[in-house]
Amino acid sequence: MSDTASYTRNERTTPTRYRDRATWERDAIHAILDAAYVCHLGFVANGTPVVLPTIFARVGDRLYVHGSTGSRPMRGAADEGMPVCVTVTLVDGLVLTKSAFNHSVNFRSVVAQGIAQQVTDPEELAVALDALVDHSIPGRSGEVRRPNAKELAKTAVVRLVLDEVSAKTRADGADDDEEDLDLPYWAGVIPVSTVYGTPEPHESSTGELPAHLQNFRR
Amino acid sequence: MSDTASYTRNERTTPTRYRDRATWERDAIHAILDAAYVCHLGFVANGTPVVLPTIFARVGDRLYVHGSTGSRPMRGAADEGMPVCVTVTLVDGLVLTKSAFNHSVNFRSVVAQGIAQQVTDPEELAVALDALVDHSIPGRSGEVRRPNAKELAKTAVVRLVLDEVSAKTRADGADDDEEDLDLPYWAGVIPVSTVYGTPEPHESSTGELPAHLQNFRR
Repeated sequence: MSDTASYTRNERTTPTRYRDRATWERDAIHAILDAAYVCHLGFVANGTPVVLPTIFARVGDRLYVHGSTGSRPMRGAADEGMPVCVTVTLVDGLVLTKSAFNHSVNFRSVVAQGIAQQVTDPEELAVALDALVDHSIPGRSGEVRRPNAKELAKTAVVRLVLDEVSAKTRADGADDDEEDLDLPYWAGVIPVSTVYGTPEPHESSTGELPAHLQNFRR
Repeated sequence: MSDTASYTRNERTTPTRYRDRATWERDAIHAILDAAYVCHLGFVANGTPVVLPTIFARVGDRLYVHGSTGSRPMRGAADEGMPVCVTVTLVDGLVLTKSAFNHSVNFRSVVAQGIAQQVTDPEELAVALDALVDHSIPGRSGEVRRPNAKELAKTAVVRLVLDEVSAKTRADGADDDEEDLDLPYWAGVIPVSTVYGTPEPHESSTGELPAHLQNFRR
């Protein structure tokens, strides 16, 4: 991990396509990670790739994911660590062009590779577990019963230090070839966004909606 | 590939956690795949996992993804095929409980594993390329200039036959432990949905919004 404004740029972190859409800037990468809360965790099991969706949190230059102590990636990371790829993707628009070929998607994504290590230090574990709640629901960790010893024993957390990581974004209009511009088809962008509805209380919630959930959006 | 109502259920397609949330039913799996258009494609490069977001299409029991002929997964699938994992995830809600431990996410996901093969038959290629446009924007392939020879030469499509595939869903309320129900915290569900905004035409689009884009939603 470097302490500069950019993460490591090497062959592994350089996309093979559309390199002009890539960045290694720490702030840009953190902003995308913080706008998302679901990642896709990739690992290798018996020589074949496995990709599972899971929530994640970022604390500084560390990503955390958690799972049951018995789950495959958690077991895999327990001893010597496990090579993983954590990918985060946000879709912002469908880009329609007059040619099928030039259709695209406006998006923001981060791909982070490295060796995931299990978190064993109790203090780091507590920080990571709070962050896993707060990353998806800011302010939430102070408004819950925190994990007890039995729950902690069931939960494994792994850490991926951000180092070999890059972001890729597209935020642009339709980009047709010159010779296609007069074709009688529609071109443009359909914006895509994620919307959070009115919180639906469980019957055990009799009080008002707490401040951290009012006007909830991420 | 079986021709029955369910895909293959084996150790690889059985989740290690929350098996009661899993299904191998063909119709349920197809419905989730058709509700999404972005997948996360996992493959192994130099022994380490790589996960990249990309659009996909489903035609019967086949998934298609495409890319530049020069991109890593397309090159990898060109000869003997390449082990991949295609994962699709839709988030429907954030599930908040009185304990941190019982927080959850309402979601629908599909995990498909197998050997991706490059599509070389021109007829299948044409079907797949149309499907890749129509899967994200229904009806679109008839309202564009279809790929020419030069564009086809730049584009690789790979096929994954659905066989070792399972879905996992959660669609439920907060599920606190009995002894936590009286705690003074808020529990419930924050609905999450994807919203498509008003299409924003490119300056080359002078006509009316075509029928396939009116009231666009997926």
